[in-house]
Amino acid sequence: MPQNLPSEIPLGRFIFERLHQLGIDTIFGVPGDFNLALLDHVYEVEGLRWAGNANELNAAYAADGYSRIKGISCLVTTFGVGELSALNGIAGAYAEHVGLIHIVGVPSIAATQKQLLLHHTLGNGNFTVFREMSENISLTSTVLSDLATAPSELDRCFKAAVIHKRPVYIGIPTNFFEDGVASSLLDTPLDLAPKPNDEEAEDEVVDTILEMVGKSKNPVWLLDACCTRHDVKEEAKQLVDITQFPVFVTPMGKSSIEEDHPRFGGVYVGTLSNPDVKKAVESADLVLSIGALLSDFNTGSFSYSYQTKNVVEFHSDYCKIKQATFQGVQMKHVLARLIASIKPVVKSYTPAVVPTSPQAWKTISHDPSTKFTQQWLWLRISSFLKEGDIVLSETGTSAFGIISSHFPKNTVGISQVLWGSIGYTVGATLGAAMAAQEIDPSKRVILFIGDGSLQLTVQEISTMARWGLNTYLFVLNNNGYTIERLIHGMTAQYNDIQIWDHHKMLPLFSGNHDYENLKVGTVAEVEELFNDAEFNKPSKLRMIEIMLDEKDAPDNLVKQAEITAKTNAAQN
Amino acid sequence: MPQNLPSEIPLGRFIFERLHQLGIDTIFGVPGDFNLALLDHVYEVEGLRWAGNANELNAAYAADGYSRIKGISCLVTTFGVGELSALNGIAGAYAEHVGLIHIVGVPSIAATQKQLLLHHTLGNGNFTVFREMSENISLTSTVLSDLATAPSELDRCFKAAVIHKRPVYIGIPTNFFEDGVASSLLDTPLDLAPKPNDEEAEDEVVDTILEMVGKSKNPVWLLDACCTRHDVKEEAKQLVDITQFPVFVTPMGKSSIEEDHPRFGGVYVGTLSNPDVKKAVESADLVLSIGALLSDFNTGSFSYSYQTKNVVEFHSDYCKIKQATFQGVQMKHVLARLIASIKPVVKSYTPAVVPTSPQAWKTISHDPSTKFTQQWLWLRISSFLKEGDIVLSETGTSAFGIISSHFPKNTVGISQVLWGSIGYTVGATLGAAMAAQEIDPSKRVILFIGDGSLQLTVQEISTMARWGLNTYLFVLNNNGYTIERLIHGMTAQYNDIQIWDHHKMLPLFSGNHDYENLKVGTVAEVEELFNDAEFNKPSKLRMIEIMLDEKDAPDNLVKQAEITAKTNAAQN
Repeated sequence: MPQNLPSEIPLGRFIFERLHQLGIDTIFGVPGDFNLALLDHVYEVEGLRWAGNANELNAAYAADGYSRIKGISCLVTTFGVGELSALNGIAGAYAEHVGLIHIVGVPSIAATQKQLLLHHTLGNGNFTVFREMSENISLTSTVLSDLATAPSELDRCFKAAVIHKRPVYIGIPTNFFEDGVASSLLDTPLDLAPKPNDEEAEDEVVDTILEMVGKSKNPVWLLDACCTRHDVKEEAKQLVDITQFPVFVTPMGKSSIEEDHPRFGGVYVGTLSNPDVKKAVESADLVLSIGALLSDFNTGSFSYSYQTKNVVEFHSDYCKIKQATFQGVQMKHVLARLIASIKPVVKSYTPAVVPTSPQAWKTISHDPSTKFTQQWLWLRISSFLKEGDIVLSETGTSAFGIISSHFPKNTVGISQVLWGSIGYTVGATLGAAMAAQEIDPSKRVILFIGDGSLQLTVQEISTMARWGLNTYLFVLNNNGYTIERLIHGMTAQYNDIQIWDHHKMLPLFSGNHDYENLKVGTVAEVEELFNDAEFNKPSKLRMIEIMLDEKDAPDNLVKQAEITAKTNAAQN
Repeated sequence: MPQNLPSEIPLGRFIFERLHQLGIDTIFGVPGDFNLALLDHVYEVEGLRWAGNANELNAAYAADGYSRIKGISCLVTTFGVGELSALNGIAGAYAEHVGLIHIVGVPSIAATQKQLLLHHTLGNGNFTVFREMSENISLTSTVLSDLATAPSELDRCFKAAVIHKRPVYIGIPTNFFEDGVASSLLDTPLDLAPKPNDEEAEDEVVDTILEMVGKSKNPVWLLDACCTRHDVKEEAKQLVDITQFPVFVTPMGKSSIEEDHPRFGGVYVGTLSNPDVKKAVESADLVLSIGALLSDFNTGSFSYSYQTKNVVEFHSDYCKIKQATFQGVQMKHVLARLIASIKPVVKSYTPAVVPTSPQAWKTISHDPSTKFTQQWLWLRISSFLKEGDIVLSETGTSAFGIISSHFPKNTVGISQVLWGSIGYTVGATLGAAMAAQEIDPSKRVILFIGDGSLQLTVQEISTMARWGLNTYLFVLNNNGYTIERLIHGMTAQYNDIQIWDHHKMLPLFSGNHDYENLKVGTVAEVEELFNDAEFNKPSKLRMIEIMLDEKDAPDNLVKQAEITAKTNAAQN
């Protein structure tokens, strides 16, 4: 807490001091006349900055990306026009368990009571409609109406977002921004510990699991999205180390565990998995699944086919053992109990062999004169990546391709596999890069995006330049929406896009920030680039255009598209 | 109707044939896997095209702009991610009475019934949530569930959008796109005539108005947004011609009547009006107001102060005389009745003097060596404009400035004064320009936008180039959000933006389309440009950067900002 605060501070300042206590150093959003006076207070908090995004959807994506690195984020928009523009981004955070505090500056209580036909309203005197729309995609919501309870109501929402990793909606009437509250409220930090589990239920879960592990001959761990999102990566790693069971990840679970870990077996995506990964997971007699989010693209269209019925699912707010659900039993506590108690029951266990497919990246062939395929590219990227990188892959060929890439230690992968909103990663890259800048400015942030998706949110690259971020922007140029082409309409005009001269992009947006434009089309050009020591340093903002064939795609996407097309056809 | 249709056609084709019958020649939107198979059918309808927008919000804005020219438009998005991105644009169309048909490709009935954890869902099996969000900002909504009733249900929604000029929401499960319906359904065009008024109520309204007119000594007409939107411009003009009462417009009503009409008196904005306009309107003893939308920015913050209580409001779905509301009495019929019956009661009327302020643009001074002000610029633009132009002015300094500009005959002005979403006009310009291309390719479409607003939606300029549109893009460069600066935070960093090199914009987006970059900073440069015959022809896509002082703004905006700031302060 900053020293020497006056005993009374404006509510606006209270909000940003509190958010700063939670580890938030950047506020995302766009100014609007119902939030301007609130924004004044951002600048009063030492170490806090206002990102100043190009639009609200991008700002929401940025807040999502930031939160995936720092655990929580804040977005500020204005009533009506601003908040509605952000909804798709908020819904994505909701679907994918991302903690995000959405603060909306709304008309004063006086204007609301008079139902004035203000600008940014629907012209029908209905002032509650926008909050109602957001409630559908928020864990909880509030519109402040009483100064006396405002700080506790704010704290309630802040806590919910941090603990449960979902968006919360907070509307603040303009008349409250300057109202005074006691600064001593900040002396007590928010208690962010999850509440304890019901003791009896937790005992039953732990005992049952230990019994199942004791009886099992070849169990596996399977780590999914919520392993990272709900912060149990460390617990998972310890359990793998203790048990020595092979560990697999889903596409959304990628980067939940080091891929160089001797027990790491690869990425499991149902029928889209490498055959040896598929066999290893599906022949297990016990599947210990942590943080599962079983969406179609995360599971090869629901094509899991375990041979066993012994499946344990660990979730943030419940556990499931075979068919029994234990509501409210949070995995965080259960995993801690297992760390303390699992060793004796696995004493006699002989570690199963780990599949070799995750090593494919080490042995790819290089014919330097040829145009490369995506299949080659994604393997090749593995050795460009280095420890600590943050890697974003856009919905489309990139999100499928990155599954084949090997991640070095502490690599963080970000991909919106469940919500799958194209354009997401440009905003998310900004957010992740601002978070990285705060944590360790030498960290590299790397985006892979197709030329089609790039068009939706391109202007947020300008905010990267504004903050002096040296991100890598790999633009996969295949003249349109190749993922859609594979699903339906291979030659349809609607999957084509207006061709941009990508090399004019950084000149348009960069202002005084140093940038570099690059282009690769052959194996030799990729090799030269990845072997260039200067290129490997994040010393400027770089756009690397990768020239690809319109129909080229990673193998797993081709297979997924066939399944999706077949499913659609079967339904007609 | 196209000849030689087979007796049964896919529902997808039925939809687009029907929309084409309504005068829609362009479908806006972004492809997504739940709408791809639907889009195939766009290409089967002769004379129909798929715009292929850069993102969904821009597409919604474009559909809005198109509808303001052609009376109706269609936007196609995909489930979840696509439709939510468009909501702010849909809400704007709702607030401002714009007919817009929003078609969303949603998961098949089979997938919905199984509550599959599909991509583009919230991951909670709730498939109805997105429709519910849209219902708040739609006149009506449907999700098709039965092929037998699908055509009539679609027709019901199409009619509602056309007649009532509001958005409608139509979800179509993917399994229906190819299902066959009878093509003979298309033989009966939709009946788009408004239903008759209750006879007794209409009689009472007409008789009362005639009596009031008969007693009045200096009545005025006041034309507002819904005069254009609900298509009664022709009726209004006839009534002005017959009665010879002076006629005024509101900011949103600008272009409801020719400004060269001998009885045109100027723009009335309450206290922000020119003094002689204010006096003329407020001293009238009868105000006949057609299509009013009395929002803050449309009324000088509700500062109307008529001296009379004799106010008649004509609305699309009710009339109001003094304090009496006649629900369901539609102005379209009432105005027609008045045209037929008003002449006798105004026989003895002596036309009041029309204010001279609308002529100010003819006498502005020109000191060619000076940097110009916005106040000068907006008057000067008057003589650049020519008959038939479509002029879009972005929320901000442009929407306020354009009020002072004189519009030649048949000029159409588009400005989102009530909803006021910044960035709107880039998309709306695309939509208006595509409509203009269909109506008369020689028409000029002219955008005025600030550099701040431009950043939100800039990529839609690429779609203008894609379709060979030769729009004029005037970019007012004042280094950020000047309208916000005037309201709050004149020197605050949050009102600054990343500075772009605007001259790289068209090179990035234009592909093979011919473009020109221009820049003006002095009176002499503006004069030279506007006097250049070649520049006056819409022969290429042009970006004209206008260099302005950060704090410079039209006088009426400065006044409006003072009122807004004062109102906010009083509420704290």
